[in-house]
Amino acid sequence: MEINGKHYRTIWLKENDPTTIQIIDQRFLPHELVIEDLRSVDEFAAAIKEMHVRGAPLIGGTASLGLYMACLEAPEGEAGMEHISQSLAQLRSTRPTAVDLFSWTDRVFQSLQKGQNKAERTALALETALEIIEESAEHCRLIGVHGVDLIKTISEKKGGAPVNVLTHCNAGWIACIDYGTATSPVYAAHEAGIPVHVWVDETRPRNQGARLTAYELGQHGVPHTVIVDNLGGHLMQHGMVDIVFVGSDRTTRAGDVANKIGTYLKALAAHDNKVPFYVTLPHSTIDWNIRDGLKEIPIEERGSEEVKFIQGQHEGKIKQVLLTPESSPAINYGFDVTPAKYVSGLITERGICPASEEGLLKLYPEQQAVLK
Amino acid sequence: MEINGKHYRTIWLKENDPTTIQIIDQRFLPHELVIEDLRSVDEFAAAIKEMHVRGAPLIGGTASLGLYMACLEAPEGEAGMEHISQSLAQLRSTRPTAVDLFSWTDRVFQSLQKGQNKAERTALALETALEIIEESAEHCRLIGVHGVDLIKTISEKKGGAPVNVLTHCNAGWIACIDYGTATSPVYAAHEAGIPVHVWVDETRPRNQGARLTAYELGQHGVPHTVIVDNLGGHLMQHGMVDIVFVGSDRTTRAGDVANKIGTYLKALAAHDNKVPFYVTLPHSTIDWNIRDGLKEIPIEERGSEEVKFIQGQHEGKIKQVLLTPESSPAINYGFDVTPAKYVSGLITERGICPASEEGLLKLYPEQQAVLK
Repeated sequence: MEINGKHYRTIWLKENDPTTIQIIDQRFLPHELVIEDLRSVDEFAAAIKEMHVRGAPLIGGTASLGLYMACLEAPEGEAGMEHISQSLAQLRSTRPTAVDLFSWTDRVFQSLQKGQNKAERTALALETALEIIEESAEHCRLIGVHGVDLIKTISEKKGGAPVNVLTHCNAGWIACIDYGTATSPVYAAHEAGIPVHVWVDETRPRNQGARLTAYELGQHGVPHTVIVDNLGGHLMQHGMVDIVFVGSDRTTRAGDVANKIGTYLKALAAHDNKVPFYVTLPHSTIDWNIRDGLKEIPIEERGSEEVKFIQGQHEGKIKQVLLTPESSPAINYGFDVTPAKYVSGLITERGICPASEEGLLKLYPEQQAVLK
Repeated sequence: MEINGKHYRTIWLKENDPTTIQIIDQRFLPHELVIEDLRSVDEFAAAIKEMHVRGAPLIGGTASLGLYMACLEAPEGEAGMEHISQSLAQLRSTRPTAVDLFSWTDRVFQSLQKGQNKAERTALALETALEIIEESAEHCRLIGVHGVDLIKTISEKKGGAPVNVLTHCNAGWIACIDYGTATSPVYAAHEAGIPVHVWVDETRPRNQGARLTAYELGQHGVPHTVIVDNLGGHLMQHGMVDIVFVGSDRTTRAGDVANKIGTYLKALAAHDNKVPFYVTLPHSTIDWNIRDGLKEIPIEERGSEEVKFIQGQHEGKIKQVLLTPESSPAINYGFDVTPAKYVSGLITERGICPASEEGLLKLYPEQQAVLK
C-alpha cells in the first residue's frame, strides 16, 4: 500500500541491515510518519505492548520477527534456547486477545527448534517469520477478492451510486502486513472503479479509525467521512449504510467474533436495520479450540489514562489533553464479543461463509479433527 | 445542587442586578467554573447556539429569560412588540431538536402579549419565565421521587450491593435547572443512602458525559466511572449494568425518544441483554403533535469541527487538538431516535408509564384532545 505515493508494508527488514527490523510507529499517525528501528526483543515487546504496532496480523508478524531477534541475541548452546524460550514468553505476554500472536509465534518457535546451533535457529526463525508474513499479506489480498463481490452486487442494485461501507477501528493495511482485512474489499472495489464511500468510526478510546483508517483511505484516494462511534446507528436507521465490514481479533469455531470495543453495538444496529454485517479475517485469527466467545475469549483491560486523556495535534505538535475531571475514575476494556447470530457472514482468504461452525468447517474441513 | 459545597442552579438573576442573567458557561467545565453575564438577546442566542448552556430544560429556561431580556431591550409601543417578535424568532432558531425551546418561549410570549406597555410586558415575561423555571426544577425533583423506586427494588434484589446505572450524555442538573432528569433518581438514591454507582458514557463528540456528568456526580460524591461510548454493550453482556437512565430532547406521543446521538445504540444493547432502559423527562419535552420520531423529529446537524477536534486540558490550559488527518471530512448529527419498542418505560413528574400513546395518555389524560 502507499504513503505519499511510495509503497510500504507495515514491517520489513532494514535495507542493508537484516539484523534491524523497521516498523511504522503508529502512535504518531496521522500527524507524523515515524519509522522505528527494532533492535532487541525488549524493543519488540514494548512496540507491541505500547501499541507502536497493533492489529491482530501485525501483532503476530511483529512477534514472529521478535523471535528471530531472540535468536540473534541468544548465546550458543543451551543458554541460547533458554533466552529464546524466555523471549517467547515475553512476546506472548504483551497482548492477551489476538490469537495470531500465539499461533504465529508457536509456528516460528517450532521451526527454529529444529536448528542445531545459533546460526541454524536464526535462519529458520527468519525464514518462517517471513513465510508467515507473506502468507498473511496474500490472505488479506484474497479477502478483498472475495469481499469485493458483495460491494459489486450492492453497486449494481444502486445503479452505480456510491456504496456506503461502515467500518470500526482500523482493520486496514496498517493493522496487517498489507491490504488490510476490512479495507481489502474496499481497496479492491476502488481499484476496480466501483464507487465506494467509507464511514469511518473514530473508535474511542485510541481513535484508530479517526487516526489510521482515515489516514490510509485518504492516502489511497478512497472517499470517506469520519464519524463518532455514536453515529452509526442513526446512519443505518436512515438507509445511509449499505454494508458493514469489520475485522476480528479472535473468532471462535462457532463464529463469535472478538473485535475492538464497540463492534457489538454496530452489529446490533445493523441487525435492527437489516444492514449486512460482515467480519473479515484471515484464518489465522480463528481459534478452533473454543466456541463461546463471551465466556471463553479473554478481554484485555488497558489503562484508564487511555480514556481520560486523548492525543491530538495542537499548533503542529502532538499533545495529550485531559478530558474528564482529574479525580473521576475510568475503565478501559479493549474488545467486545459479537455473537455469531448478529454476523451476516465471515470473509476469509478461502471465501465467504455463514458465521457458524458448519460454515467455517465447509471452508476449513481439515479442522474437523480439532475439538468435537 | 452543589459545586464546591455551594448551592447553585444553572441560571439565575444576578444579585442586586435583575437586568442581568447569570449562567454557568459549560464549555469550560470540568476544568474551570466560569460564570457568564447575559445582558442582551444576542448574548442569549449565542449562549444557546454555541452551547454555553445545553440540555432541553436549560435551553428552554434560557430562551424564556431571553424573552424577558427582549422586553428590557424593546422600545415602547409597536416597535417594541416588533423587537420582541424578532427576538422570539432569533431565540427559536438557535437549536432545532429540543421541544422545550418552542413550548416554553410560546408560553412566555403569550403571557407578555397581555401587557399594555413595556413595563407590563417586561414584568409578565419575567414572572412567566421564572414560573416555568420553578416548575421545571420541581418536575425534575419529582422524576427522582418516582425513579428512585426502580433503584430501590434492584438494590433489594442485590442484597444492598451497589446498583450500577448507565447514563449517556448529560441529563444531569447541569442540563436542567436543578436535580437533572436522568440523574434525579440517582441523586435521590444517594440521598436515601442506597449504594449506587454510575457508568458515565463520555458521549462524543462534545463529551458531555466525561465533562459534565462526571463533574456533577463527583461534586455530589456519587461513585462513578467514565467509559467510552463503545463500552456499554460489553458491560451489559457481562451483567455489569443494572439499569439505564437517559434524558430526552423530544419524546413523541407514541413514546419514540430523540436524545443525544448514540442513545439508540445503548437502547439496542439494553434490549439484547434484558437490562431495563428508562427515559426520564419532564412532560415539557413531550411533543403531542407527532407520533413517528424517526420521520418527524428534525435532527440537528452541527459543524464537523466538533468531530475533528476535541477540547481538553494540557498543562493547566484548555486546548483544542486535531484528531483526524487534516484533509479527512467528518459529519456530525447531534441526536438519534430510539423507537418506543426499545424503551422499558418513561419517567415523568407524574410517574412511570409504558413508552406508548396509551401509557402517556394515562398520565396526561388532558392531552387526549390533541391530534387523533
